[in-house]
Formats: sequence, C-alpha cells, structure tokens
Amino acid sequence: MSEESPVRRFQDFRWQQVDLLAYKQEGDAPFKDITRQVLFQFPDLDGELRYFEMAPGGHSTLERHQHRHAVMILRGHGRCLVKDKVFNVGPNDLVDIAALSWHQFKADAGEPLGFLCLVNVLRDKPQLPTESDLAELRRLPGLSAFLTETC
Amino acid sequence: MSEESPVRRFQDFRWQQVDLLAYKQEGDAPFKDITRQVLFQFPDLDGELRYFEMAPGGHSTLERHQHRHAVMILRGHGRCLVKDKVFNVGPNDLVDIAALSWHQFKADAGEPLGFLCLVNVLRDKPQLPTESDLAELRRLPGLSAFLTETC
Repeated sequence: MSEESPVRRFQDFRWQQVDLLAYKQEGDAPFKDITRQVLFQFPDLDGELRYFEMAPGGHSTLERHQHRHAVMILRGHGRCLVKDKVFNVGPNDLVDIAALSWHQFKADAGEPLGFLCLVNVLRDKPQLPTESDLAELRRLPGLSAFLTETC
Repeated sequence: MSEESPVRRFQDFRWQQVDLLAYKQEGDAPFKDITRQVLFQFPDLDGELRYFEMAPGGHSTLERHQHRHAVMILRGHGRCLVKDKVFNVGPNDLVDIAALSWHQFKADAGEPLGFLCLVNVLRDKPQLPTESDLAELRRLPGLSAFLTETC
C-alpha cells in the first residue's frame, strides 16, 4: 500500500490509501456502529496497527483472546471494560488489554470514539462469553449497567 | 508497567507510568532536542510502540536500518526525509519507512513535533551515513537545504 508515497495524509479520520472496512469480517458476534481501518500491515512488521471507530453510542464486541491489545484513544470519549472493571477513557489515553482479559469499548452518546489498536500479526481468534461468563461478569461491582447497555 | 491499572492517562504529552527518556541510550549520533517515551513494550507483544517528541526546530538522527518504522504524527508539524524525498507532515499523517530507507524528522520552528513509532521488538541497530552517503543524498533534488539544517 506504500508504493506511491511513504506518507499517507490524514483528513477527518480517514487516511489516504486506507480502506474503510467492516469491524469484523465474519461471524455473528454482537457489536454496534463500528468501522475498521488497517493503518500498518506489512510482511516485515510483526505488529499490525488498526484504527477502530464507533459512532456515538456504538460499541465493540465483548470478547477475550490470548493475544494482547495495546490501545491508544485517538478521538472522543467513552468507556471500556477491561477484565473486571469499567474505565472512562479520552484522547491519547493508553489501554493495555492483557491475555484473556474480557474487554469491550463503548462510545459516549455525544461523539464518536476512535482508537488505535496494536496487535501481533500472528494471533488467536477472539472468544465470546458464554451465558455463565456473562452472569459472572454481571456480578462484579459496576459492570451490570455497562453490560446491560452493550450485551 | 501495567500492574496497577490497564488504563494509563494522558496529560500534556506525558502518560502515567511512562518515563521520559533520552532519545538514544548510547553512541554519538547527531540529533537535537528530542525525547522518547515507551508506551507499549511487553513480552507477549511482537511490536513496540514509542512516542518521540522534538522541541521546535529539533531533529532526529539521519539513519537507516533493516527494520521498518511505522509512524503516526501525534502533534505539531514538521518535515521528514524518507529515502530520497522530503515531505511535510502534520497531525495523524502516516509515514512508512521501509527497510534501509534513509530517514530523518525535523520539527517546524514554531511548535514541537511528536510522533508514534511502531517497530518490531527484534530489530537491527541503525546505521549512520558515511560522508559518501551524505554527498549522494545532497545531490538529490530538494535535499541539500534540509540536510544542511540537520546534519
């Protein structure tokens, strides 16, 4: 994707030569109003950098996996569930999602929430929560309301 | 570095639990007014995400290496030399620095230039230009003035 120029310009949360993609390519995992742009993906780069953006009120899938997510918020405000807590997040905050931590992002009502997400190129597939996992998460302090909105 | 909380807050281009470091840890490579913060570096992450910031008028070292740099500008405006051309860059622009491409960043006079840089954890050391390399670069259209300012 970099044959023409090593610099790809940014404008209004789109980048030159970067396609706007569906959040997920397959499956029936629940999510709402979210897109994906792959910013850096090269054969000689072991990490892959993606940009996800949720429309106001949108949310990602509640899931977990063995691979780590390294996240930086790029625009907007929202909340994220990581492992067993919900955190408020805003521009340039870092979110570290360790192996097998349940996680989910949700945009606030008034603005989109966009974030960079670094992953290993070689990574496992996400796992969805079972009813029993969800019940366990709902029992944790402060998680019930968040999960009712998003799951 | 994430034992306390998975979320590390951003304020004024510093992040919680992230040290402000010297740009380089060793050697006598030329550079000016530049710092480094390592945002994500974990044993199970194959990529490493750093934030570099140059004070107004500051610049990075002119160098090249086998490993790829995947760069996103986070603040400010400046110029970067990549391979054989100089480009203007601004917030959220992407810069792809392929294997063995000479590269150097310079902040404009009026504001700092800060950028994210993704690299492989396993990577080779930078090479500095010889006098002959510099002479060759200076002969390329538009590079002479840039190099006179920074080298």
